[in-house]
Order: sequence, then C-alpha cells, then structure tokens
Amino acid sequence: MKKINVGIIGFGNVGSGVVRILRERRTMLSGKIGTQINIKKIVDANITTKRNVSVEKCLLSKKVSDILDDPQIDVVVELIGGIHPSKEFICEALKKGKHVVTANKALLAQHGKELFALAQDCGKRIYFEASVGAGIPIIKSLREGLVANKFNSIFGIVNGTSNYVLSSMSGKNCSFSEALREAKQKGFAEKDPTFDIEGIDSAHKLIILIFLCFGKFVDMSEVFIEGISSISISDINYAKELGFSIKLLAIAKREGDSLEVRVHPTFVRDSHMLASVDGVFNAIYVSSDLAGDLLFYGPGAGQLSAASAVVSDLVDLTQDLKAGMFRPTLNSIQDASIKKLRKINEFESRYYIRFSALDKPGVLATISGVLSKFGISIASVTQKQRAKAKSVPIVMVIHEAREKNLRQALEIIDRLNIIKEKSVAIRIEDI
Amino acid sequence: MKKINVGIIGFGNVGSGVVRILRERRTMLSGKIGTQINIKKIVDANITTKRNVSVEKCLLSKKVSDILDDPQIDVVVELIGGIHPSKEFICEALKKGKHVVTANKALLAQHGKELFALAQDCGKRIYFEASVGAGIPIIKSLREGLVANKFNSIFGIVNGTSNYVLSSMSGKNCSFSEALREAKQKGFAEKDPTFDIEGIDSAHKLIILIFLCFGKFVDMSEVFIEGISSISISDINYAKELGFSIKLLAIAKREGDSLEVRVHPTFVRDSHMLASVDGVFNAIYVSSDLAGDLLFYGPGAGQLSAASAVVSDLVDLTQDLKAGMFRPTLNSIQDASIKKLRKINEFESRYYIRFSALDKPGVLATISGVLSKFGISIASVTQKQRAKAKSVPIVMVIHEAREKNLRQALEIIDRLNIIKEKSVAIRIEDI
Repeated sequence: MKKINVGIIGFGNVGSGVVRILRERRTMLSGKIGTQINIKKIVDANITTKRNVSVEKCLLSKKVSDILDDPQIDVVVELIGGIHPSKEFICEALKKGKHVVTANKALLAQHGKELFALAQDCGKRIYFEASVGAGIPIIKSLREGLVANKFNSIFGIVNGTSNYVLSSMSGKNCSFSEALREAKQKGFAEKDPTFDIEGIDSAHKLIILIFLCFGKFVDMSEVFIEGISSISISDINYAKELGFSIKLLAIAKREGDSLEVRVHPTFVRDSHMLASVDGVFNAIYVSSDLAGDLLFYGPGAGQLSAASAVVSDLVDLTQDLKAGMFRPTLNSIQDASIKKLRKINEFESRYYIRFSALDKPGVLATISGVLSKFGISIASVTQKQRAKAKSVPIVMVIHEAREKNLRQALEIIDRLNIIKEKSVAIRIEDI
Repeated sequence: MKKINVGIIGFGNVGSGVVRILRERRTMLSGKIGTQINIKKIVDANITTKRNVSVEKCLLSKKVSDILDDPQIDVVVELIGGIHPSKEFICEALKKGKHVVTANKALLAQHGKELFALAQDCGKRIYFEASVGAGIPIIKSLREGLVANKFNSIFGIVNGTSNYVLSSMSGKNCSFSEALREAKQKGFAEKDPTFDIEGIDSAHKLIILIFLCFGKFVDMSEVFIEGISSISISDINYAKELGFSIKLLAIAKREGDSLEVRVHPTFVRDSHMLASVDGVFNAIYVSSDLAGDLLFYGPGAGQLSAASAVVSDLVDLTQDLKAGMFRPTLNSIQDASIKKLRKINEFESRYYIRFSALDKPGVLATISGVLSKFGISIASVTQKQRAKAKSVPIVMVIHEAREKNLRQALEIIDRLNIIKEKSVAIRIEDI
C-alpha cells in the first residue's frame, strides 16, 4: 500500500487529536483511501508533558528542521497558530516541496494571498479545512460542492466564545462580564479573550470565507469590526421582546457591484435558523444563486472536531498525491461582478437604538427631531418603565438608514443634556 | 485545455438546468478546474418542446445509443429517474467504460449494491450528489469531509413535499388534504404524491445516507415506513401546545450493536434546529463521533439546485480523470460495530398518543389500566374540551415504551366501547 509521511508541528490540543485519530482509525482510513497516512515526526517546544495519546519517543522532537529538512516527509501539518514563526515554517515547507495542512485562520486571513501564491509557484497546495468551523466541512462545501455557484451573501456565527457568551447572557439573564467569567471557567474562553470577543477572530474567518466565495482576499483593515463587549443584558432582553436574538455575525453581502464586509453584533429574527444557534456552536448561512440558501452548522471548536477536519485534508491530499499528479486547487475565480468594497459610511441598515434619557416631557420629540433632520425614519418606539432611576431607556427601531447619517445624528443626540449615557445602536439584518 | 465529453440522458427539468449551468458558467468552471466540460449529446424522448435553454439541434437525439455507443463520451449523466430503463442505461454505460452521474435516489436505494459493484468491476465510478438534498453538498460532506468519523445517528428531513404539507398545516391551520391540494397547485407536490407523502422517497434517501455513514446497503423491506397522510391538524396543534413540531423524519440510529432504520412522523422539540426547517427545505442532522452534531440545510429540490449538485459531480469527475487515473471511491467501510438491524417490535420510544373516547367517568382509568398492564407509564395527560361531540380527545405523552407493547395495548384499547376512533400514536424523538 502507498504511504504518505506526515510531519506535525504543534503537539497541543488539536495536534494530539490528529495523532489520536490517525492512530486509532488507521485501518478504517487506509481501507477507505488505499493509502497509509504515516506520522514521521512530531515537533513541539514541549515534548515531555503527557498528552491523551501515547507516541514513541523517537517520533518526538523539539527541532522543526527534523521535519522541514526531511525529504521523506510529504506534508507538514502546522498547528501552532499565530503568525510567527508559523508563516516562516509554512513558507519553508512549501519551498522544500512539501504540501501544507493548517488550521491557522489568523495567518491565512492576513497572509493568505502571499502564501497561496507561493504554494502555486512551488506547485504545492495548502489545505485549511480546520480554519473555519472546525469539523464542519464548510471549506470543501464552498470550494467543491458549490463549485458552480455564485454567491450573494455569507452570514456566519463563526466564533464559539462570543456565541457562548451571548447565549449565556440570554439564557441566564446575566451580564456580559458574568457570562464571560463563566465561559472562562468552562474553558470556552481564553484567558485573554480579546480576539474572540472583539470580533477579530470572526473577521479572520470571514476573510477566508470571502476568498472561497468571491475569489478575493480582503485586507483586515477593510473589514468593519465591532465586538460584543458593549452589549448589555437590557439590549438582549429588548431584542427578545421585539422577536430577535443578538448574534455576533460575520457578514459579506453583495450590494449591486460592491461587497459589504463586516463583523458586528446583529439583531436576527427569532424564526431564522441562525437565531437557534446556541452556545459554542457555529453556523454558516450562505446564499448561492443555484443551490439557494444553505446552512452549515456544528461545533465550532474542540480537539477532535478540528482534528477531524485536519485528517480530512490529509485524506484529500493522499488522493491528490496518489493520482500521481497534483490535483488543481479548484482555484477561486474572482467574481468579476464585484468591483469594490463598500465603505462603512455607505452601509444601509435597519437599526435597534437604545437611548438613556431624562424622564421628562419633550424628550422623545427632541430625539426624533434630530433623527428626522438626517432623514432617519422611526419604525417603532417604546419608552420603558418609569423607574426611580434618573434616566429611562427609550428603545427604538428605525427603518433602513445610511450609517453615516445615523452616526451623525447619534453624535448630536448624545451631546444633548437630556441624554445620560452613550446611545447604543445595533444593526438589524433581515436575513 | 483538457476536455471531457458528457452525454446527458433526460432533458427535463434538472437536465435543462445542467445544460444551462454548463453553458452559462463555462468560463468560470474551466477557469477553476482547468478542464472543459463539453456536452456532446442530449437524449430525450421529447426533443421538440422548448426548454429554458437553447441548444443546437445536432446535440439532441432520441436514441440512447447515440450516447452509449459513442466512445468519445466519458461520462453519462442519467436524469430520467425511475428504475427502468435507467438501470439498464447505467449498467451499459459502465460496461462501455463510462463514468456515471445520477440523481436517481430510487434506483440507488434499491439497486445501489449491484450498481456500485458493477462500477467497481468496470473500474468506473458512480457520482450521486444530487440524489439527496439537491444542492446541499451532503454526499461529499459525509464521504470526504467527515471521512475519519464514525456515526451515531442520522435525522433527516429529506422530502420537501411532506415538509411543505406539514409546515403548511401548521402555519395555516388547515387539514392534510387542503395543504396537499395547495402544494400541488404550487408545484411542490406531484399529481400522484404517494411516494413523497407515504415516506417512500424519504426511505430511498435514508438508504443512501446509511450507505455513506455505515457502509451498508439496507433493503427497502428492512426500513420501517410510516407516511404523514394520517396526521390531523389537531395532532399538529396538540404538538404545538406541548412544545413540539411534527416532522417526517428519516432516522438511522445506533442502539448498542444494532441500527434502527425508520421513516415516520416525529415529534421534534421546538427548540431543536430541525423544528425550524419549514416549507420545501431539507435538513440532515448527523451525529458523528469526532466532528460532533452537524446540520446541513437547504432547498431540497429545484431545477438549479439539483443541477448545481450534478455539475459538482462532473467537476469532481474531471479532477479524477485529469489526474490520469481513477481516484478511488473513498469506499464506504462497513461499520463493524453494527451487527444487525433492530426489529420494529424492539424499537423503544416516547410517544404522543391521542385517544378519541366517550366523555364519561372512568374512561381514563380504563385506558391507563390497559397501558399499565403492558408496562407503559404515562408522563402527562390532557383531556381536551368537553365538546358537544360524542367523543373527546385524550392527549397523552408516555415514557419510553417498547413498540411491541404499545401496539398490543393500543389494539386492546381501540376495541373498547368507550373508544370512538382509531387511536393515533406518534413517536417523540429526543434529539
């Protein structure tokens, strides 16, 4: 039986999952694909800590060169994450004639263009199924299953931590910080959760999805990003009353000849499938012109889930290699109907707005007067309980408005004496 | 550029969709895959009716031999459906050295074992992405994306017609026959909808999914099948009151060393994603041991949606052919931990039961007495409005009970004088 040799860089959570699957499913996999996937070397800075899989000592090394300089190794699996030195390892691997499998979304989002070009030059391929949605086969589905489609939009819940926090706030009626604390305790949030909570990780994944759907690498600076740290439990409860859930969505949406690219908390109708995605689950909802509106849902993280995707990449690779030639990448073709990215100021959206205002006559008239000057029209208003507090929340839903106009109006409103706190505005997507 | 020649048998709805996509997306597809997919011949009994795509007359023929006997044709796309003569055409195509792409679920479900064996013997491959869930890339996802996984269960809404009818009954509060009439008017149900409504089509698709997940072809006679024609609007409304939706589910579920295989109307918790699948949409929910619980959702039918899947098969095939050798099938490996199929009598399930009983004292005592004799324990009972009608509905939810016991109990109950109509029992799945 044919054999391919794999070198794994990074023997952490996902790395040991990959090793476990390749060992425990050896017979099943080789039976299915007619090729043996052989682990030739595992490199990690720490090779002494016990993992939940045991490997022969001779397989372990601290030196990356034991993989990169071994001509018998066909594939490098990069699982250390981050930009450096992952990028250097991957470049060197490609240059030395090795294919690459990686789960590194941050790296692909920020340097994907360069890395894919290098792979092309080297006649090698980069596989990255685990980079978005862990075990959900979303990369393969978009690239191969929907190969004939053009795409209209992507709406993704692609960060498990933020979704857990939002679900938790909603389910337990607790504050953002309480929910985050609990997420950390349960291992669903990292010590420093900034990347997850502030939408950076979602933006990384969105860039990868856009590459697959629209054939274009968007720069991180071109993605409008807002995180969930300013979402309060009252917003979540008002959303509920209005028939919505708040989700951190990664959005790419075609508007005429331009593409809107953004990550932000979003009001999603309760009846939409995305509203039912709770906890650490991920879901990607794509609208395609032939296959229609599709949803892919599953756990967005987890040792075995991500490892399942890495192993599927290795299987694809064995098939490519076995065929004796390199199967072309199913290169993304740039969607020529998209001419530019839409600027944030030009976004148009319905909005939920919560004002904290003094509880006295004329307040609503003043606020709506300012909005009206900017051509913003109100769909509904609710003034909440007349509490003992000095300010009362005024909850408003506005019709489609241009971002720029809304921002200007809110700036003026927030400077009024009758307004006690910065107003909160959350976009409503009619998916 | 390399070229593959395609012969299409069946120029109906899906066939003309395939032709349209291959023509309109020619540049995009060849750009992605580096191969040109060329339509060499289209065969149909009717070649005069106008389709929504125009083709040169010389491409059309009424004679299947124009495809099967043409040595230049690499692939036969079979889109006529049904068993005969599709089966004969496919067998001949394989024997004549052609690969096959088909959307024919009935044929694969009933003769798949034989056809795949023949393909193996001929060194050819059968592609069938369009056979389940139209454009949803479920076949590719199960076979390739989840290649390393073992599966625990499949719960599928795989028949758009039945799902439309059930959603419609629920949404419009109308009877089964009204909903079916409307579905026919809208083109969502065929003139004779028996296959869809009675669960046969769902069983066909379930057999294909089981083949992919468990590596085994189940015989149609081994699938327990119940359709939706006896579901009444009152059952749908009682379900709602209890927090459930009724869905026609195709189920394969591992229980110890055996597999339960069944299609029947099912109570699904409203909070579960499957309960939100409305109208002609399909969804397949699979539980895998590495990637976890995944859901694939999208339109389950439609000209371009099914054609999108057929074209993705053709692209896979060009890749296989281009590689100069036949890429192995990723053969399903039979899951050895499954020893047998579970007999219907051994199924265990919670149940919703609706009795139509005389409205007089002692009725409930009598019914529950019989149930208790068979070891069936009641979770909740509601006796509905005391109407002028002679009988009142008694709605019951029972704890996990063995099918055999329940059937025996119901048989006895239904013979009692106090019972005015056949009792209705619908399984509750705690997915």
